[in-house]
Amino acid sequence: MKLYDCATAPSPRRVRIFLAEKGLALPRVEVDLRAGEHLRAPFRELNPHCTVPVLEVDGTALCSTAAIWRYLEEICPEPPLLGRSALEKARIADLQWRIESEGFAAVAEWLRNAAPGMKDRALTGPRDYAQIPQLAERGRKRAEQFLHWLETQAASAAPYLCGEQYSVADIDALVCIDFARRLHLELPPEAGATRRWYALAASRPSASA
Amino acid sequence: MKLYDCATAPSPRRVRIFLAEKGLALPRVEVDLRAGEHLRAPFRELNPHCTVPVLEVDGTALCSTAAIWRYLEEICPEPPLLGRSALEKARIADLQWRIESEGFAAVAEWLRNAAPGMKDRALTGPRDYAQIPQLAERGRKRAEQFLHWLETQAASAAPYLCGEQYSVADIDALVCIDFARRLHLELPPEAGATRRWYALAASRPSASA
Repeated sequence: MKLYDCATAPSPRRVRIFLAEKGLALPRVEVDLRAGEHLRAPFRELNPHCTVPVLEVDGTALCSTAAIWRYLEEICPEPPLLGRSALEKARIADLQWRIESEGFAAVAEWLRNAAPGMKDRALTGPRDYAQIPQLAERGRKRAEQFLHWLETQAASAAPYLCGEQYSVADIDALVCIDFARRLHLELPPEAGATRRWYALAASRPSASA
Repeated sequence: MKLYDCATAPSPRRVRIFLAEKGLALPRVEVDLRAGEHLRAPFRELNPHCTVPVLEVDGTALCSTAAIWRYLEEICPEPPLLGRSALEKARIADLQWRIESEGFAAVAEWLRNAAPGMKDRALTGPRDYAQIPQLAERGRKRAEQFLHWLETQAASAAPYLCGEQYSVADIDALVCIDFARRLHLELPPEAGATRRWYALAASRPSASA
């Protein structure tokens, strides 16, 4: 088993935090995204979608965080990070989907359509797509809305986003907030519940992974 | 347990096919999206994200297909649609993520930014977002690329997209292809493996759900 990683990218950090919570260590290969290593062979032959993280298992390349988490949860069930009961598993899956599609997607839409260094890289993957300025603006608005939603979630469940148990929902939201900070988007002043939750999640040793 | 459904929308169909494969029947509530029922109380109080499907379970509203599938798989494991072994589960999660983020997302981006009836409804949810013509064009290109990727997948695994076992990857891809047809995007001429797989998946009784 081998993890293709990148120390500065948000999604690989989601896997590193997950591994730290499980107490697992894997052989790592650092992929230099700035040098375009992900767009060339040999990495591109491993993952034609040209993204990290990738977990290589018995000749299979798992190319999404969701798939990597699922595999690791199955082979190392304790502590469970994808839930215990049927309803808890489903609630965590719901939060995971929400944070990914409205949090990560919004911040990425904003960053990739605004950053001068990402010209023609408005989407990840092997193909170039031009930046669309309206999309940068839309991404910013959506990211702000996401933080408002997160506050209602943090206010309705404690101490963690899904209740008593720390889960991938906490990993996702923590990494997403830190990702948004790169664009100087901070938690809004009224986000008291989010702040309390963030302090707790960020104080876990895994957060530095 | 109650399913909030819409007969004409693609994501609720993913849940209906899943239920049919499990041999389950649930009480259904039809939500009239054309009349804007999803944007008003009482539905909006159930799901502030204003989307279908929603599965209501013991006072909890599960508001994403992923969460609903996870819950149903846990309470009714046979036949498994999210995989058997750790690696199969992970490979299915990987396909599911890919089809959702590159297939569904692309077709939705195209449709919602192009259809005259979707003016200011470029995204699902409670807020209006203006259409962006460049995004309609980008969505179309991405949907075409998705079909090329799907052909490589269908050519590498048979008879189903993840191999011997029918899974949610097949449900997702079937519904996505039918969704793209609304925009008159057909399978490319060279997509022989996809055609063989599609004929098989579409011939299952669940496909008419």
